[in-house]
Amino acid sequence: MAGELIADRVVVEDPAEGSTLHNRGFFGRPRPGGGLELDLLEAIYLVEADRLAVRRKGRAVSARELFRAASTAIESFEIRYLVYRDLRQRGYVVEARGGAVDFQVYPRGGAPRKTPSRFWVRALSERAVFDLAELLERAEEAAGVRKTLLLGLVDEESDLTYYSVREAHPRGHRPSERPKGRIVVHFLGDRAVVIDEHEAQALHAAGFFGKMIGRRLQLSLLETAYLAKEGFVEVRNGETDRPIRLARLIKEAEAVQPDFELRLRAYEDLIARGVISKTGFKYGSHFRAYEGDPETHHAKYLVHVVPRGHRGAWPEISRAVRLAHGVKKQILFGEVGEDVRYVKLERVRP
Amino acid sequence: MAGELIADRVVVEDPAEGSTLHNRGFFGRPRPGGGLELDLLEAIYLVEADRLAVRRKGRAVSARELFRAASTAIESFEIRYLVYRDLRQRGYVVEARGGAVDFQVYPRGGAPRKTPSRFWVRALSERAVFDLAELLERAEEAAGVRKTLLLGLVDEESDLTYYSVREAHPRGHRPSERPKGRIVVHFLGDRAVVIDEHEAQALHAAGFFGKMIGRRLQLSLLETAYLAKEGFVEVRNGETDRPIRLARLIKEAEAVQPDFELRLRAYEDLIARGVISKTGFKYGSHFRAYEGDPETHHAKYLVHVVPRGHRGAWPEISRAVRLAHGVKKQILFGEVGEDVRYVKLERVRP
Repeated sequence: MAGELIADRVVVEDPAEGSTLHNRGFFGRPRPGGGLELDLLEAIYLVEADRLAVRRKGRAVSARELFRAASTAIESFEIRYLVYRDLRQRGYVVEARGGAVDFQVYPRGGAPRKTPSRFWVRALSERAVFDLAELLERAEEAAGVRKTLLLGLVDEESDLTYYSVREAHPRGHRPSERPKGRIVVHFLGDRAVVIDEHEAQALHAAGFFGKMIGRRLQLSLLETAYLAKEGFVEVRNGETDRPIRLARLIKEAEAVQPDFELRLRAYEDLIARGVISKTGFKYGSHFRAYEGDPETHHAKYLVHVVPRGHRGAWPEISRAVRLAHGVKKQILFGEVGEDVRYVKLERVRP
Repeated sequence: MAGELIADRVVVEDPAEGSTLHNRGFFGRPRPGGGLELDLLEAIYLVEADRLAVRRKGRAVSARELFRAASTAIESFEIRYLVYRDLRQRGYVVEARGGAVDFQVYPRGGAPRKTPSRFWVRALSERAVFDLAELLERAEEAAGVRKTLLLGLVDEESDLTYYSVREAHPRGHRPSERPKGRIVVHFLGDRAVVIDEHEAQALHAAGFFGKMIGRRLQLSLLETAYLAKEGFVEVRNGETDRPIRLARLIKEAEAVQPDFELRLRAYEDLIARGVISKTGFKYGSHFRAYEGDPETHHAKYLVHVVPRGHRGAWPEISRAVRLAHGVKKQILFGEVGEDVRYVKLERVRP
């Protein structure tokens, strides 16, 4: 088969050759007068597969020339091509798509304009910015038309990792009892403690707060701030025994943990969803989150939160997804704005 | 048993009572005139175990008072106490130690001044700064006297994770062949490619460089910079075909990857050690590193590098150690200064 390179297209003039290419794999767009028009991703893929030879003005176009034409015409050509090629090699019919999504992918055996497409795919370099707000928007659009949004991340060595992106709505069965009696909490700078054994046990029993260490109950700063805010406990200075007000407590907490208010917002949101959350320190994320009693349940989620507008780095995200997968938990990335929204990223093999 | 709280000590006057405490667990230091002197970590631990009652001037000291005295007298009392208590509960004899290490820990069944101690332990809050230079120094000191340096990291919920710290000296069996012939590499902004199939195969065969994608060889920016620096390849612009000089290549690489020179230093150091390193993107670290051919070996290490003087956050380190453990690799943290030094952190259960 031979095609003519014209600007950023390759045109196969011969109608029979055009049909053959189109009928095996739905490459190109048939031209009104006969023949086929291919974009450069398609053309390079077909050249690599020995199904096409490209010429310009009667002269053969070398691999290097074709490659340069594509690099010039298509933004991030190499990244897009790697994802295009990989999906094609996996047996999918792939169509370039304008706008914020790079490809529309049909199920194996499906055909454009006959079968609905299955995936929307974005090709991204690992050096691209991780933009949670944008992912949420794209995932919502995709879900609205029953597509799965996939990201094809290309690393420095051109290895590909696919992530599915879905909005998540975590829910749990947290009892919402109010602890009984007057409970005094002593603030220790980076945590807090209930020293009285009876008060400690009452608070611990009321809603999975804190952790018993011997006869004392250790509370995290988040738990302490939440309990103080709800009026469930009275907070005092651990050395002087003097009362500490909520605003002061939050200020001190921020000194040791600058993103404290962000975490507190997410902690409260998870409590409102009935989810019990504990620190995710051991997993390097903000929370591990349970649907029920942490003593008897495994944590279902790891939750990492960022403020609205946050722009992060993909290698960190990649690491968090892999880690969650290794410990059989789902990873949620929470965006804290006026409300808190969660995206679930999963490593998939399409 | 009764002890008297005097400033930051608890003194057991009765010689028989003192001996009993000291003989079961080596608590306290015997006083010249008989009796025993306990520090507040020991005293609180013994009170919690119902082996001691503390008084001051004939009056019982409450849990709350004792706790306040300890918080005032001992810096980061709560963190230290949690580690002390945990090690004691695991059956170790633990002695407070001055200076940069908190505790000296004897093997089970061992005794101070009879058995050499086994671990040096530092108690750290997860909010402490991760200071690689200091860890290297401590690990070297500990190794010099045949101790294992352990870090006891206390998270927000008072859960404990122990890490052993050792200097590492990675070595591999990388062949150091010079690729034959003149090889042209086209630079694409965030990676590079050898388009000529024969040149591609020659370079790939010479030392595990790059990755064959169809008939082209994809090179990472690090590989490209290394190969150009060694004079193994000629780098050209992917669109214009014009030669690109090394300084320019590094400048462009830094635009997409601000820590490029740091990574290149570590990459070169690993090559000099015979280690083959590829991107650690999928693991969220800088490199995965092989002792032999990456096609036939599993990566033994994940390597994360920081510049000398770097001060980081423990949750990130914690995440990296856990991830490496999950994929059965060792994690090395490399400090890039005049030379490159590596620390191996391992999660352990002492």
